[in-house]
Amino acid sequence: MSGFDIRAMAQAARAASQVLARATGETKNAALRAMAAGLLDSRERILAANAEDVAVARAETHPSAFVDRLTLTAPRLDAMARGLRQIADLPDPVGEITGMWRRPNDLQVGRMRVPLGVIGIIYESRPNVTADAAGLCLKSSNAVILRGGREALRTNAAIGGILAAAVGSVGLPETSLAVVPTPDRAVVKEMLLLSGLIDLIIPRGGEELIRMVREGSHIPVIAHDKGLCHTYVDAGADLGMAADIAYNAKVERPGVCNAMETLLVHAAVAEVFLPGLVARLRQAGVEVRGCPRTRAMAPGVQPATEADWDTEYLDLVLSIRVVDSFEEAVAHIAQHGSGLAEAIVTADHGRAMRFLREVDAGAVFVNASTRFTDGYEFGMGAEMGISTQKLHARGPMGLAELTCQKFIVLGAGQIRDSRA
Amino acid sequence: MSGFDIRAMAQAARAASQVLARATGETKNAALRAMAAGLLDSRERILAANAEDVAVARAETHPSAFVDRLTLTAPRLDAMARGLRQIADLPDPVGEITGMWRRPNDLQVGRMRVPLGVIGIIYESRPNVTADAAGLCLKSSNAVILRGGREALRTNAAIGGILAAAVGSVGLPETSLAVVPTPDRAVVKEMLLLSGLIDLIIPRGGEELIRMVREGSHIPVIAHDKGLCHTYVDAGADLGMAADIAYNAKVERPGVCNAMETLLVHAAVAEVFLPGLVARLRQAGVEVRGCPRTRAMAPGVQPATEADWDTEYLDLVLSIRVVDSFEEAVAHIAQHGSGLAEAIVTADHGRAMRFLREVDAGAVFVNASTRFTDGYEFGMGAEMGISTQKLHARGPMGLAELTCQKFIVLGAGQIRDSRA
Repeated sequence: MSGFDIRAMAQAARAASQVLARATGETKNAALRAMAAGLLDSRERILAANAEDVAVARAETHPSAFVDRLTLTAPRLDAMARGLRQIADLPDPVGEITGMWRRPNDLQVGRMRVPLGVIGIIYESRPNVTADAAGLCLKSSNAVILRGGREALRTNAAIGGILAAAVGSVGLPETSLAVVPTPDRAVVKEMLLLSGLIDLIIPRGGEELIRMVREGSHIPVIAHDKGLCHTYVDAGADLGMAADIAYNAKVERPGVCNAMETLLVHAAVAEVFLPGLVARLRQAGVEVRGCPRTRAMAPGVQPATEADWDTEYLDLVLSIRVVDSFEEAVAHIAQHGSGLAEAIVTADHGRAMRFLREVDAGAVFVNASTRFTDGYEFGMGAEMGISTQKLHARGPMGLAELTCQKFIVLGAGQIRDSRA
Repeated sequence: MSGFDIRAMAQAARAASQVLARATGETKNAALRAMAAGLLDSRERILAANAEDVAVARAETHPSAFVDRLTLTAPRLDAMARGLRQIADLPDPVGEITGMWRRPNDLQVGRMRVPLGVIGIIYESRPNVTADAAGLCLKSSNAVILRGGREALRTNAAIGGILAAAVGSVGLPETSLAVVPTPDRAVVKEMLLLSGLIDLIIPRGGEELIRMVREGSHIPVIAHDKGLCHTYVDAGADLGMAADIAYNAKVERPGVCNAMETLLVHAAVAEVFLPGLVARLRQAGVEVRGCPRTRAMAPGVQPATEADWDTEYLDLVLSIRVVDSFEEAVAHIAQHGSGLAEAIVTADHGRAMRFLREVDAGAVFVNASTRFTDGYEFGMGAEMGISTQKLHARGPMGLAELTCQKFIVLGAGQIRDSRA
């Protein structure tokens, strides 16, 4: 597959993006419904391509969790189609005027949402991302180039072909979405240099992928990095509420980025709080590691090493540290958090407000589980991923975050006076 | 000066940024007023340092426009101090909650403006940028590292030292702002790699500087690139208004990025419109270049080459092209515009709305001069520069664009249910 022309693909996407920018919401929604129908109509073709990918992954002895994420089933395809129809039902973000004000010289100045242009998405195994990302980009009038993982190559190519044909069936360019048909890493590196043709690169995956993209890209990047989330139980907190929140944040779905990895507990409540919680967590199969004070208060806690405070377990493992103050908790989070989501459980209004203001993360919670960090749960209707950086988007990204705002100015012949 | 430790400077700025994030608006405003007073109190020291820079620049036979931009005078210093006091009078962007909504499970989800952290600014000769950028960053609770041009090194060092001492005088860290004290390019290259310490790089300057930064940076970049602005005079436009707008956009201050470089005129009005306008422009000393049709309609027009349509003259030079349709004008702008500012003069509502929506630029004008593209003119109270890219900020950047918005979530013990 060497010799694949990524520049030509990006040029076609750029041309398509100019058509998409002018497409009506009605046409885009028709495309999204055609995309959903296409997935269902071609169910067998997609599942057959996926079965080949899965067979190769099994032969390469990937871990079973990996093979599971790669595997498509009829219900998973149904969910992908349903997702596309849900995106069709959301309001069109493009052309929205988010504010307009009048200047002393009677100029009307405002801001209008417009598409970014061409978005490149570089992601790892799960093939549902192909449909989700294609749908969100189309709704926001962006052309998209999708470069999925090597292991899902056949699946993604099948899905991409079907979705592109569906887009073409309503009169929009088929090149509005394209799947890179080769696993060649040199093609990704070349893609990252096409700064005149691609406007944004979104890498979703492990640390190595994100570092490679950040360091090699001449195009702006919004990274979807790891989640090392904390819950801090404050002095005077409702300890029943704190236990339920901590348990939920750790146990409900430990393999995702918004699950808790470290629990911080104020010394004033630790002795009452920790024994019961640790027992409940161990009952659920959680391996608990802790600082010396934690270990002295609850049985069955392994010693936590310095490395534990920086580890995203993504598993039924939790590290616990007893702190002497609110400030110590905030400092621990500043040093070890990844900026995805952080929570405090407290009954004190002042400290709740300080936590909201002082903790630097995409989502900061008072008295709720970090597991809610999700575009759907936040009421955004869709999610492209969760940005862990600060530029452009921080936290869950929805349709609005796939647009930018330009200034629009309505005049009646105003000209500018010379200045001193 | 080799061996300068830019990493240590960035680490100190990072530590300062954590203090700034918690500073009250009152303290920040006191710092801004102390900065203004410091500039005035140390007027002689600054002017002496500047005189040395100017003498060297003259000896190196820089063009006189360059030397003029480099030169500080007592009135220019007064303007810098006034600018800092104006920034003090603006509302504090930090901590602003821009929206809050209630979810079905009673979670309150909202967004809060927070500082970006540490901003690196890489700019060329004008030393007033040092004070403006320092003031805007301080007001938005960002620490800043300023790397000005080699030619202004002594001036910037003097200004930076005075401003940092003023910040220290109100109890904020002196390291909240720092001027890189060496012209060594290797230091800039190293600065661009400090992605854990610096959150945003803003390059302001020529194409070569911006390319170097874009290609070498591991940190997100917001570039302030060139301005190749068009004015399109539509069929049926008010030709008196069109002439005034075009004249203003070209002549009022030709050396700035929001001045017009190319005029597009619909064929239906060109024969009536162009002769008078060209005569008026030539009277003002403008060299006019044009397409063959333009040359046939107005005397004294030089032939425009293909290169003219891509040239930012920044001077009293204008290229003119007659087009046969609105679509041809929009296509010309899409091909040759730099995305800074574009204007249409029209009496037709439908085409005005299409121009606003379809033209891709930071600021799109109907019936007004592109010269208004400016944070002050738009009512933003301040300006950090004009972004010509799409991520995070597009068009003039004010205080809000030096912040990001995180999600804040207020709960009462909510936990997340398991999903299928």
